[in-house]
Amino acid sequence: MTYPDCQELLLSEANGILTVTLNRPHKRNAMNERLVDELTGVFSAIEDNRDVRAVVLRGAGGNFCAGGDISGMHDRSVGDEAAAAKAMWEFNRNFGRMVTQVNQAPQAVIALLEGVVLGGGLGLACISDVAIADAGAKMGMPETGLGIIPAQIAPFVVARIGITAARRLALLGDWVDGAEAKALGIAHYVTDGTAAMDAELASVLKRLGKTAPGANALTKKLLLSVGKVEHEELLDQAADWFAEALGSEEGIEGTKAFVEKRKPSWAEGA
Amino acid sequence: MTYPDCQELLLSEANGILTVTLNRPHKRNAMNERLVDELTGVFSAIEDNRDVRAVVLRGAGGNFCAGGDISGMHDRSVGDEAAAAKAMWEFNRNFGRMVTQVNQAPQAVIALLEGVVLGGGLGLACISDVAIADAGAKMGMPETGLGIIPAQIAPFVVARIGITAARRLALLGDWVDGAEAKALGIAHYVTDGTAAMDAELASVLKRLGKTAPGANALTKKLLLSVGKVEHEELLDQAADWFAEALGSEEGIEGTKAFVEKRKPSWAEGA
Amino acid sequence: MTYPDCQELLLSEANGILTVTLNRPHKRNAMNERLVDELTGVFSAIEDNRDVRAVVLRGAGGNFCAGGDISGMHDRSVGDEAAAAKAMWEFNRNFGRMVTQVNQAPQAVIALLEGVVLGGGLGLACISDVAIADAGAKMGMPETGLGIIPAQIAPFVVARIGITAARRLALLGDWVDGAEAKALGIAHYVTDGTAAMDAELASVLKRLGKTAPGANALTKKLLLSVGKVEHEELLDQAADWFAEALGSEEGIEGTKAFVEKRKPSWAEGA
Repeated sequence: MTYPDCQELLLSEANGILTVTLNRPHKRNAMNERLVDELTGVFSAIEDNRDVRAVVLRGAGGNFCAGGDISGMHDRSVGDEAAAAKAMWEFNRNFGRMVTQVNQAPQAVIALLEGVVLGGGLGLACISDVAIADAGAKMGMPETGLGIIPAQIAPFVVARIGITAARRLALLGDWVDGAEAKALGIAHYVTDGTAAMDAELASVLKRLGKTAPGANALTKKLLLSVGKVEHEELLDQAADWFAEALGSEEGIEGTKAFVEKRKPSWAEGA
Repeated sequence: MTYPDCQELLLSEANGILTVTLNRPHKRNAMNERLVDELTGVFSAIEDNRDVRAVVLRGAGGNFCAGGDISGMHDRSVGDEAAAAKAMWEFNRNFGRMVTQVNQAPQAVIALLEGVVLGGGLGLACISDVAIADAGAKMGMPETGLGIIPAQIAPFVVARIGITAARRLALLGDWVDGAEAKALGIAHYVTDGTAAMDAELASVLKRLGKTAPGANALTKKLLLSVGKVEHEELLDQAADWFAEALGSEEGIEGTKAFVEKRKPSWAEGA
Repeated sequence: MTYPDCQELLLSEANGILTVTLNRPHKRNAMNERLVDELTGVFSAIEDNRDVRAVVLRGAGGNFCAGGDISGMHDRSVGDEAAAAKAMWEFNRNFGRMVTQVNQAPQAVIALLEGVVLGGGLGLACISDVAIADAGAKMGMPETGLGIIPAQIAPFVVARIGITAARRLALLGDWVDGAEAKALGIAHYVTDGTAAMDAELASVLKRLGKTAPGANALTKKLLLSVGKVEHEELLDQAADWFAEALGSEEGIEGTKAFVEKRKPSWAEGA
C-alpha cells in the first residue's frame, strides 16, 4: 500500500492496522494546513482498500491534539485583511471537509485520547468509531474564551454528546477529563496510563478482527445514513445491502462458518 | 377481542394487558417469516382498541429473541439464486415493516429482556416504550461477525442509543449485559432474576394504569413525530391535539378529578 | 436597560446577569397567560443586548414551576365551548412560542430547578444552556394522568433526554429527582440545598464570564442549527461565522490576549 508523502504525520501499518500519529508535539499537535491536507490524503488513499481494517489515530508526545494552529496564518495576513479572512475561511472549511471524510471512512477509526483534546482535536475525537480516553485527558472547546467559535466541529460534537452537553461545554468553555468524557459519550473506554490504554486497544482490535471488513464498511455507511435518508427509503436501501452482503463472499463464508461452528476465514488470526 | 390465529406466538390478555410471547424456544425465539407476520397481525388487530392498554413482549424459555431465523430460507434457495436473494430481501424488509409498526403502536409496549437479545431481537427491544432488562441478558449485533449487516434495525438502534454507541456495538460485535444496556439507554430498568423482573413489571403497569389510554396514544404519536415534522408545524399540530384532548371525555374527567382531588375513572383500579 | 412592566415576574440585574423569578408561589409558579407574555417581553427586550450576558431563571418560594395554569381559562369557558377551545389552543400554542424563543436567546440561560418542575415547567428547564437541579426536585410530565398531553413541550423534552427516556416519563407519568434528572440529561449539576445551589451558580457564572458574549451568542446559534440545516451548508455557514468572529473586536482581542498570556478584556473581572 502506498501512502502520500507525509511531513506532519507518522504512518505505520501492521496486520491491516494503520496507525496515524499527529506529529507536531512542539505544538501539542495543533493542526496546520499541511497536517489537515495530509490526513485527507491518507484517508483518500485507503478509501477502496479493505485490507486496511482499522485506522488508529493518536498524537505524538502525550497529547492527542490542541486544535487548529492558526499561528502561521496570522503572519500571512499582514497588509491584506481581505486575503487573510479568505485564507482563514478556507483553512477552517477545509478542516470540516477532512473531518466529514474521516467520519465516513469505510475503516473502523479508533482514537486514543491522551493529554489535550481541544477544539478541532475534540472534533476529530468525536468522529471515531471507538475512542479510548486516558483518565487524565483534558477535553473541551476553548474557542469562546478566545472570542471565536467552534465552527466546523459543532455538528460532530452535537452528534456525539447531544445538544444539552454541547451547550454547556461550548458556552462555559469547560474542560472534561477521561471519566466525564465517557459519561458524556465522547469516549467508549477510560484507561489510566499508557500500558492500560495499549491493552484496551489490543482488546478492541482483537474483537474487530472477528468481524468482516466489507460488512463493517457497509454497516458504518448504513448507521451514518440514519436521520439523513427518509425512514422507509432507508429500510429499502438497507434490505438491498442486506441481500448484497448475504450473497457476497463474506456473507456466504460467515453464515457457513456459523453453521459449521468454526471461525470464518477473516477471523482466523483473531 | 379476537386475535389472529397464532402458531409462533402465545397470547394472553388480562385487565387490558396483552402479553405476547415469542414461542420458538428451540431457536431461542429467532424470528421466522410466520412469527413476523403474526406480530404484524396482532398489532393490527389492536390498533383501534383502547381497551388494550399495554402490550408486554417477552420470549419463551428464558430468552427474548436471537434475531432473524434465516435457516429456513437457505433450504429454499437451492437452485435459484435470484429467487433466494429476492426472498431474503422480502424477509428482511418485512421485518423492518413490522418493527416500524410496533414502534408506532398506540398502546404502551413493554419489553422484558432476558437471555439473548440479538440482532432483530435487539431491534424489537429498541422500540419498546419501557424495557426491563435482566442483569444477565446478552444483547448485541452479531451481524458483522457473520459477514452480514444489521440492516432493518439500524435506525431503531441509532434512535435508541445514539450513533456513537451504535458504531462501537455494531463494528466490534460487542455484547452488553443488563447493566450496560441500561447505561446505554436500551433498557429503563435492570432486575436480577424472574421474581424481580415480575415485580418491576407490576410496578410499571400500576403507574401506567393511572394514565389515560387515549392521552397516552396521542402523546406517543406526538413524541414519535419530533424530528419528522418541521418545528412550528409540529407545535401547531400539538396545540390541535391539546385542545382535542382537553375537550375529550378523558380530558374533562381528568381535569375534574384533579380539582376534586380524586382518582379519575380510568385509574380506579390502579 | 428598560424592561417591560412585569406583574408575574420579578426581575433583577447585576453585573450583566439578569435574574428572572417566576413569582406566583401560591400556584407553585404555574404559568398563566400573563406570565408567558411577560417572559416573551423580557427576552425580546434583551435580544440585541450583549451587555446582558446571562439570564438566570428560577421560581419564587422553593418551586421552579408547576406547569401551565389552566384554572383561569376554565372560568372563561362557561357558555361557549368553541371559544373556550380556541382560547386553550392559543394559550397552549403561545407557550410553545415562548419556549422556542427562550431556547434561541443569544444569552446563556441558566435554570435553577428546585421543588416541582412539571409539564410546561419541565419544558422551560429543557431549553436552558445550563441547569442546576436540587437533589430533592420533582420533575415530570403529569399530563397523561389528567387525560391530556405534554403538547408544546414534547420537542424540547425529546431534544433534551432522547425519545427513549421521554416515552417512559410521559407514558408512565413518572417523576424524577435531581440525581435522575442529571443522569437523564435534564440537568448538568445536582446540588443539595440552597447554599450549594448558589455556590454552583456562582461557579458557572465565573466560567461564563471568561467567554466572549458575541462569540457565545454565535456559538449557541450554530449549535441550535445542527440537524436543521444540511451538513455542508451548515459548515459553509460556520466558516463564514468563524471568519467573522476572528476578525471581530472580540476575536482580535481574544487571540491577542492568548498570545500575550493575559486575560482578554471581557474576562478582567472573572
